[in-house]
Order: sequence, then structure tokens, then C-alpha cells
Amino acid sequence: MARIKLTLAYDGTDFSGWQLQPRDRTVQGEVESCLARILGAKTRVHGSGRTDAGVHAVGQVAHFDCPDERADLPWLRALNATLPPDVRVVDATPVSGEFHARYSARSKTYEYVLWHEPGFCLPQRRRFVWACGPVDFSAMEAAAGVLLGEHDFATFQNVGTPVKSTVRTLTRLSRGPGASPQESVWRFEADGFLKQMVRNVMGCLVACGRGKLAPRDVRSLLSAGDRSAAPATAPPQGLTLIGPEYGWSDSCDNQDNNCP
Amino acid sequence: MARIKLTLAYDGTDFSGWQLQPRDRTVQGEVESCLARILGAKTRVHGSGRTDAGVHAVGQVAHFDCPDERADLPWLRALNATLPPDVRVVDATPVSGEFHARYSARSKTYEYVLWHEPGFCLPQRRRFVWACGPVDFSAMEAAAGVLLGEHDFATFQNVGTPVKSTVRTLTRLSRGPGASPQESVWRFEADGFLKQMVRNVMGCLVACGRGKLAPRDVRSLLSAGDRSAAPATAPPQGLTLIGPEYGWSDSCDNQDNNCP
Repeated sequence: MARIKLTLAYDGTDFSGWQLQPRDRTVQGEVESCLARILGAKTRVHGSGRTDAGVHAVGQVAHFDCPDERADLPWLRALNATLPPDVRVVDATPVSGEFHARYSARSKTYEYVLWHEPGFCLPQRRRFVWACGPVDFSAMEAAAGVLLGEHDFATFQNVGTPVKSTVRTLTRLSRGPGASPQESVWRFEADGFLKQMVRNVMGCLVACGRGKLAPRDVRSLLSAGDRSAAPATAPPQGLTLIGPEYGWSDSCDNQDNNCP
Repeated sequence: MARIKLTLAYDGTDFSGWQLQPRDRTVQGEVESCLARILGAKTRVHGSGRTDAGVHAVGQVAHFDCPDERADLPWLRALNATLPPDVRVVDATPVSGEFHARYSARSKTYEYVLWHEPGFCLPQRRRFVWACGPVDFSAMEAAAGVLLGEHDFATFQNVGTPVKSTVRTLTRLSRGPGASPQESVWRFEADGFLKQMVRNVMGCLVACGRGKLAPRDVRSLLSAGDRSAAPATAPPQGLTLIGPEYGWSDSCDNQDNNCP
């Protein structure tokens, strides 16, 4: 069997998230039925992780296995010819059988976009921003500083599949300029994220930015480990998975490198 | 009666254009029914000009008249509370009765966005770009140079309401950077545009960029005045009306200036 690594972009608006579901339209479901048509056999696609309903991606990574004689298919073209327009293959590369989209990931990056103009949200941007209105960036950045580094992020985890540990290392939480002066972009990088962690942290930062929570209270919220005491989850449409990062040896391309 | 000037933004994807139509969903139709609900009377909205089905706007201008005692309504808030999310009022200002959204306009600006990556179009951008693939910018810019200035643009006019003259002055047709390295933005400024003129010119520029038409042939196409000899109309979704421009005396704000 040959292993193919896919990089995928999707507009999450009309998807019930990444993960396969019996009745709802999901990204994994669309990619798997597309592969089944091309390969003539049910094919499991392994993503780097789930994204929630309404959350977007520009660099989601997934892998699948196919018979060796199909490895050379022009996968990007073949998949994009069959997939619906709200999901696209950005890159398709044969990889070593050692590579695993989820387990080989060393870290992951997300971006969350806020819209600050109080009177209106530009219709062209409404599916990609949280129109939270005016906020105090310095309060938000002070709160972000509290969360940077290694912590038990149980406060910012929603109920879901149990995980071994809720300790994660947030290596970056910084603000950048948006596509327009009315927007700000918040970049999150960590070795991994708990369920809805980015949206829960974002909800907390915006509460600080609105003066409803003091940045110093974020420290006690974090230590309490109590989700119910923290501000509400930010809406999904502001969030985009930029993508997972892999070490060289995991993601090496069989065609270009001398992988084992 | 008091006159109110509206600046409107819309995502044109789900509209059959600006202009009121008996059965189809249009921007003018949405704004007029919204005003009818607020004012309790049928109210005509005059736009600066039509936009085609699928074409967007960030600064469309329109005006309407209302009884003097309603002039002070918080129009931006009132309209945005009632309008569907794909059309928003960006600004609402009382103006002199001399102001007319269409007849007072001195010039108009449009932008057309191209997507050049051949393998895929980012799903998040698919409603706002023409995925025309790789093109030769220098050939396109040479063709643009031929079209700049005052010309009879009959070649680039689609059949529609007859106009007195097909002579227009194109004061700018320039390329700028896009939201991502895969995009380019083409800015059009003129004293006025004929029906589908921007999309027809764009179709012609892309034909040059693809090597299917030589920039020098654009001059003969222009002089021929024959629409059927020119390349096909560019698709609507790449186009955004930036807005009309008004002279000071036409657009002056009754509240802030000493207008007549």
C-alpha cells in the first residue's frame, strides 16, 4: 500500500465539521466518498484532528492508503474534479508509511478573526469573522500573556472524548492586522489543542476586551479548572485551522527525499 | 420631505442584482421593503446604478425621501436591524434635496479580483474571484494602456437599455496586490460605465493575459465597435462596486456643512 498526504482547504459554513457523521455533511465524509468513487473501494481518511461545524481550514492535513499501482494518480486534479467547491485539495504528496496526519503532528496553528466596527459587519466577511464590536486590545493581550506557556487548560475544554491529559503548551497567542482596519487576527500555536480550546480562550479574551473580566482573573479561572466559571465559547465562523506542523522525518516526500 | 443618502455593502452571491424585479430577490427590493416596514409607506430607493446578479458592493450609494419628522431616525441601526445579513447599511446621512445618487455621481470605481493558482481556488474566496489561472500581467497591462482615456466603448457594452452615448473616459485601469499571493486586483475608474463594461473589458484583458489576443488587437476591437468580435464577458463574482464619487456640493451633509 502507498500512503498519500493531502492538504485541504475548506469553507466550513455548510459543513457539520470535519468528522464523519452518519447523516450530516462533513468534510471527511465528502473526501471519503470522493476517494471511494476514484478507487472503487471504501477508503478511510485520517485527519490531523477534528474541526467543529462552521470552522474553516486553509491547511488541514489528512492521509489515506491506496494500492501501490494507484499512488501515481494525479490526486490533486482527480479529487478537485469530484469534490464540491467548498472543499479543495491544495496539495497531494506520497509519503512514507511512517507518516500519520494526527500522530506525527508536532504542533498546530489556528487563526481567529474579530470584526470590531459596531454598526455593521461587511456582508462579504460575515461567514469568516466574529462581529464582537469594539474591544480593548491591551486588556486582551494582558490576558493572552497569562495563558502563554504550559498550563492545565481544563477550564477551556468542552465536554467530549476523554483525553489523557489537559496540559498543553501554548507557544503563541498574538494579535496581527486583519484584511481590513475593522478586523484583528489572533494567532494560536500549541503542541495540541483541547476540544473547542481556541474558541473558549477567544471567548475569554473578548470578555477581557469588553471589560467584563479583568486579565488578572484569567489566572484564577485557569487554576480553577472549571469550564462553567469561564466566559462563553466564541462562535465558530471566526476560526480557521491554518494547519498542523510536522517534523522533517515524518512528512518527508518519498519522491524528493531519501526517506527510509 | 427630507432626503437620506445611504452607503450600502452587499454580498451579491444570492441576489439577482441591484435593480427591483417582480419575482427575484434584489438589493433594491430588500431595502425598499425594509423602508416600507419602517415608514409604513412604499418608498422608492434610487441607486447610483445597477449591479448585475452575483456582483458585490462595498460602497453602493442610494437615496430616498422621507417625511421631515422621520429624518432623524437612527437609520443605520434601524435598517441593519431589519435587512438580511447579506446587505448592510455602512452609512446613512441626511443630504440636500439637490443630491441624487445617480445624477450627482461624477465618477465610479470598481475592482475585479482574479485567482491565478491553477490547481485549486481557495473555497473561502470562491464567491469573490474569477479563477482564471496563470496569466501574463505585462500583456494585460499593455492592453489596459490601450483602453485608458476617452473612447467609444461600444465594443464592451452588452445589450440593454439604450444610452445616448457610448463614449466614456477610463481614468484608471491598474493592477494591485490581492488578499493573497494567488490573487490580483484590477481597479477601474471612469466617469461612467456601460452595461457590463467592466466585465467585458476584464474578459478582454484575461484573453490577452492568456495569449489568445495580442494587446495591439485591442485597439482594432475598440474601433470596430462590435461586441460579438470581442472576448467573452468575465464572470460576475470577481466584481465589486467600490462606489461612486460625488463632488463636494452634491454630497454635502446638511448637518455638518452650510449647504444651500
